[in-house]
Amino acid sequence: MINEPEYVSIMDKDHNKLVVIMVGLPARGKSYISNKIRRYFTWIGYNAKMFNVGNYRRKFFKNSFNDHKFFDSRNEDTRNLREKLAISVLDELIEWTLNTSGRTISIFDATNTTKLRRKALVDKLEKKCINYLFLESICKKKDVIEKNLQMKLQNDDYKNMDVEKAIDDFRKRLQHYEKIYETIDEEECVSYMKIIDVQRSFNISKIDTHLKFEVCNFVMNININSGKFYVSRHGQSVDNVNKTIGGNSRLTVNGRGYSTKLFTHIHNCGDDIDVVFTSTLKRTIETSKPFLKKYKVINKKLLDEIDAGICDGMSYKEIKLIYPEISKKREEDKLNFRYPYGESYRDIIDRIKHFILELERTDDTVLIITHTAVLRCILGYFVDEKLEDIPYMDVPLHKLFKLTPDKNKYKVTGVQLK
Amino acid sequence: MINEPEYVSIMDKDHNKLVVIMVGLPARGKSYISNKIRRYFTWIGYNAKMFNVGNYRRKFFKNSFNDHKFFDSRNEDTRNLREKLAISVLDELIEWTLNTSGRTISIFDATNTTKLRRKALVDKLEKKCINYLFLESICKKKDVIEKNLQMKLQNDDYKNMDVEKAIDDFRKRLQHYEKIYETIDEEECVSYMKIIDVQRSFNISKIDTHLKFEVCNFVMNININSGKFYVSRHGQSVDNVNKTIGGNSRLTVNGRGYSTKLFTHIHNCGDDIDVVFTSTLKRTIETSKPFLKKYKVINKKLLDEIDAGICDGMSYKEIKLIYPEISKKREEDKLNFRYPYGESYRDIIDRIKHFILELERTDDTVLIITHTAVLRCILGYFVDEKLEDIPYMDVPLHKLFKLTPDKNKYKVTGVQLK
Repeated sequence: MINEPEYVSIMDKDHNKLVVIMVGLPARGKSYISNKIRRYFTWIGYNAKMFNVGNYRRKFFKNSFNDHKFFDSRNEDTRNLREKLAISVLDELIEWTLNTSGRTISIFDATNTTKLRRKALVDKLEKKCINYLFLESICKKKDVIEKNLQMKLQNDDYKNMDVEKAIDDFRKRLQHYEKIYETIDEEECVSYMKIIDVQRSFNISKIDTHLKFEVCNFVMNININSGKFYVSRHGQSVDNVNKTIGGNSRLTVNGRGYSTKLFTHIHNCGDDIDVVFTSTLKRTIETSKPFLKKYKVINKKLLDEIDAGICDGMSYKEIKLIYPEISKKREEDKLNFRYPYGESYRDIIDRIKHFILELERTDDTVLIITHTAVLRCILGYFVDEKLEDIPYMDVPLHKLFKLTPDKNKYKVTGVQLK
Repeated sequence: MINEPEYVSIMDKDHNKLVVIMVGLPARGKSYISNKIRRYFTWIGYNAKMFNVGNYRRKFFKNSFNDHKFFDSRNEDTRNLREKLAISVLDELIEWTLNTSGRTISIFDATNTTKLRRKALVDKLEKKCINYLFLESICKKKDVIEKNLQMKLQNDDYKNMDVEKAIDDFRKRLQHYEKIYETIDEEECVSYMKIIDVQRSFNISKIDTHLKFEVCNFVMNININSGKFYVSRHGQSVDNVNKTIGGNSRLTVNGRGYSTKLFTHIHNCGDDIDVVFTSTLKRTIETSKPFLKKYKVINKKLLDEIDAGICDGMSYKEIKLIYPEISKKREEDKLNFRYPYGESYRDIIDRIKHFILELERTDDTVLIITHTAVLRCILGYFVDEKLEDIPYMDVPLHKLFKLTPDKNKYKVTGVQLK
């Protein structure tokens, strides 16, 4: 049996490194998008890293910034400083990209609003034969810009400033950028994607590798009005009591009790659930039973528990006894370990990744009733858990997790239903 | 257990009818794209139908067309005729859309190259509250246009004409269209996707429903340089001999013999295989063994056989005896029948559809070693088999199928390896 956890697709065997270069005025959600790309591609197995030029500036040039004049392009001193900074962050990005083994996505998160700046970036990247894709966020919707602007007031540039003064200063900073802003055009001859007015319109040009396509496809799925998700394991099953893994046993009385409590709890929350998903195994379907009265319930095979292959139906104790080698290998690398003729955590991520994209896109409220390993992979994605730690996340029976969109991440709250 | 074979996604519960309106000069691949959309969406469970205005014209106005002058917009008579024809085909499309239950995609395949024409279509559709999406194919690549032009010579307009004369006439027809061609612009305020120079660049605007998104996503995956695919079941397994379904048995001596023959056959074909896919079950992995020496072999759970649920490990005879109800239901509707705690053919399509998109996108040569039901779903898609007939396709053991792109379809050839 071949372990191929790093395999994502048929295509692009030779293009497994990509630099994503953000373009756009301040407060256009560039960091929001960058962060989502980093999170998703990390989760599906890339080495993904963001390089935010603003953060570097705030860290290394603390004293150079006083107010918006820093961003005035007529100010030669600060202009040179900013140029130099951008290039040195790019150098760091290039170094990281070349020195990181495997498939990498490096995101250069800065305004990059002039052709001259972009040309400088492209020249450097092409010298190193690194593939790149420009992602330009164009937004003229006043309400979105205002919302993003409020977020800006929380960063270090403004945290000790009077709010009104800060807003005024930020608006002036915006004007400096607007004066010199040049949108990407065909003459630049680069691969690009433009996101226009938050996710309804896109211009996509020269997508010549599979990885660029994957990034564009992901970005098309991002929704700024994210949905709200409830996630839980099934109620206690007979196999849970017997401490065996896999199988397809029914719920215990205790487990059926959870099913009722789960329904009552969600009903009392006042959240209107749009759809309930379960796996195709008895224990999740039984758990969803009370929901049938009121909600649409869908059984999805892709939500089935990790396939334990030859260990299906055994307890961990038995596995250790009969297949000590399996126990050992699993302990050494729980993320990549694939049960013989079964699955690994990586395999689960591969099987649910399109489902995650649907969740990214929806603004519905969704309840998912699934199993330990699948629940960990779902939660791990939304709370941005370190990949190696996902197989160890604490997801006890009869605990309901609620995921609520919160800035660039999801806030998770858990309640043990007793 | 809930049967939900028609379920595709979380979103768009209320937008399950869409009209796709093609736009573009002749010989820009509009029918090619239309056909692919029809085929894919039919396969995933939509009622999808193409309405090609050219075919209607050739059928009903046989005698009006003599040469390119028919398409000259200064020719008032034929212009009126063409207007009338387009509208009456649209009427037929609307009628079909409204009278077809369930989720529908209707494709209006015509040039629709003027704002006036598009306005007329939109007015009619909006009156009936039908959602629509424009798909404009823009292509300036001479080689592609020339290739498409050659295809045109095979249609009824030119089949009795001298080749050179036909080409000359078609070029003149093109010029008539070019004179009046107006590309879609923002002022028209419609949802659209522009496909620019065959699949590398796209403009996508106002995609406000999930179904429009799905169509755009599919179109982005279309590749005119399609890959070549070999597909086969595993070699004979112990369970095959015992006539039981499901399970995870190994190959028989006979089965291992097929594995060697398969390798030799493909090796001798001279086709350079880029990647071999198997399921995660022993019988396909064993079949792929000889390929390990030379090729990249990937085991994919999504290629596993249909999950027979409570019938796993039984013979059809036993099922009929123990679960006569299951046997009966399965016979009545093999496509939708889901084994209790298992899967239906529809479920398989749902599980492999993203894999099919990857195959659509690749130009690689791929060998897939899988199982009866999955093989039928894959073949069924590529050869455009009627959905209800897919579960009955003849896919004997030890037969290798080869799929080669051929115009709008795939040509399938099968060879029994003895």
